[in-house]
Amino acid sequence: MPITLDVARRVLDAAVAEAERIDSPSSIAIVDDGRNLVAFMRMDGALLASIEISIAKAYTARSMNMSTGDITPLVQPGQPLYGLETTHRQPLVVIGGGFPLSGRDGIVGAIGVAGGSVEQDEQIALAGQKAT
Amino acid sequence: MPITLDVARRVLDAAVAEAERIDSPSSIAIVDDGRNLVAFMRMDGALLASIEISIAKAYTARSMNMSTGDITPLVQPGQPLYGLETTHRQPLVVIGGGFPLSGRDGIVGAIGVAGGSVEQDEQIALAGQKAT
Amino acid sequence: MPITLDVARRVLDAAVAEAERIDSPSSIAIVDDGRNLVAFMRMDGALLASIEISIAKAYTARSMNMSTGDITPLVQPGQPLYGLETTHRQPLVVIGGGFPLSGRDGIVGAIGVAGGSVEQDEQIALAGQKAT
Amino acid sequence: MPITLDVARRVLDAAVAEAERIDSPSSIAIVDDGRNLVAFMRMDGALLASIEISIAKAYTARSMNMSTGDITPLVQPGQPLYGLETTHRQPLVVIGGGFPLSGRDGIVGAIGVAGGSVEQDEQIALAGQKAT
Repeated sequence: MPITLDVARRVLDAAVAEAERIDSPSSIAIVDDGRNLVAFMRMDGALLASIEISIAKAYTARSMNMSTGDITPLVQPGQPLYGLETTHRQPLVVIGGGFPLSGRDGIVGAIGVAGGSVEQDEQIALAGQKAT
Repeated sequence: MPITLDVARRVLDAAVAEAERIDSPSSIAIVDDGRNLVAFMRMDGALLASIEISIAKAYTARSMNMSTGDITPLVQPGQPLYGLETTHRQPLVVIGGGFPLSGRDGIVGAIGVAGGSVEQDEQIALAGQKAT
Repeated sequence: MPITLDVARRVLDAAVAEAERIDSPSSIAIVDDGRNLVAFMRMDGALLASIEISIAKAYTARSMNMSTGDITPLVQPGQPLYGLETTHRQPLVVIGGGFPLSGRDGIVGAIGVAGGSVEQDEQIALAGQKAT
Repeated sequence: MPITLDVARRVLDAAVAEAERIDSPSSIAIVDDGRNLVAFMRMDGALLASIEISIAKAYTARSMNMSTGDITPLVQPGQPLYGLETTHRQPLVVIGGGFPLSGRDGIVGAIGVAGGSVEQDEQIALAGQKAT
């Protein structure tokens, strides 16, 4: 079951609200279980790079069924997934801020947030995740 | 002046409402004056192809400062813009459903709609355009 | 619900059997409901181009929820979807040989066949489709 | 001499059987001596990222005529092949799980496996390799 637009909007609204609260202008992307885009918003003043990075974080989190922050240590030199970020034609992002989203029957998609520090991006993404 | 997220959301909400009213599950994309994505929604049941096509229609409409439907006749064999759709690394779309969005001081971005017939896509995009 | 590997294998085996029967060395690709590859086989002697084209036919059929042969007339000069094939970053193929695959609850994926004439490709794909 | 589909299927079946035995849902890809895809299967529940990674592991193993696990130490910072993974338009993968496949007269192709740990991926790929 893919995420519905209703749920995606709820996730997006919760994430935008958190981003406003902590004053971190962000791009926020939601993909479905097939890694296809469902909803996206870029807040005023967010870095342009946050567009591509937020979408790629969501894509990566669903590709790996892991948070992108959990991937970060695994791709360091000498670690098991070193080089992962160039394995797809689509960009993968191995920086924190992407999380899988789960429904009753398993993973339904993923959220990716970019624009602030890793800590801010993760806090915003988790606020979205809580709203599923 | 680029479009603000507030205006983009208003445009998106008006377009989604129109798409629901005429029962045409759609993807709807808003780009800013730099052709960069601001907001996007894919309604439940919309064709997957509508993701790429709606984003590309918005991108194309702002690239050319024309509605994509006005571009259609110009790219036919023998016509002045024949081949236009392959001139960018980003896909351009020469099918109706993309429109520039204007503010007080000129063009602020564009909207692209895909998922239905050209007529439906244009009707939905125009409902969005009216909400700027 | 995406297609399972069991069903995909059954579809693939039926398609390969038909391709052998009519002596048309082919590539055959199955994608799931999110357009992601599930199973693929290239028969001995099949054109190398059939790799990319069969995968893109399956991708296109699921993107549009139509057979790629039904798309062909719609993308001709002057027709409503003229230019469709360049709207995605992924190649779309608007040549017959791609068909959606349905399960109990709707579309579960798609099959794409390439390597022979359009008629041969479609006959092979339909033999696969019948095995779902 | 490239690998035949018959051999590729035998390799694939042996690899899938091993993946089932050790309960590691995987994608498994076979390429020929020209690095072109011959056969592919993604097991139910395998990570989506395993699609791209398994295909790229097979591509890399045949590109270098080495197992991808043997490439891993050579691409670390300060080592001779540092940066190898971004040298092709096609993604290369420098993580274990890709192996060349040999016939009577030399290398006929390669296998790539992804979805589990490096150890699991290699074990599955070797089970396939044994079936050539």
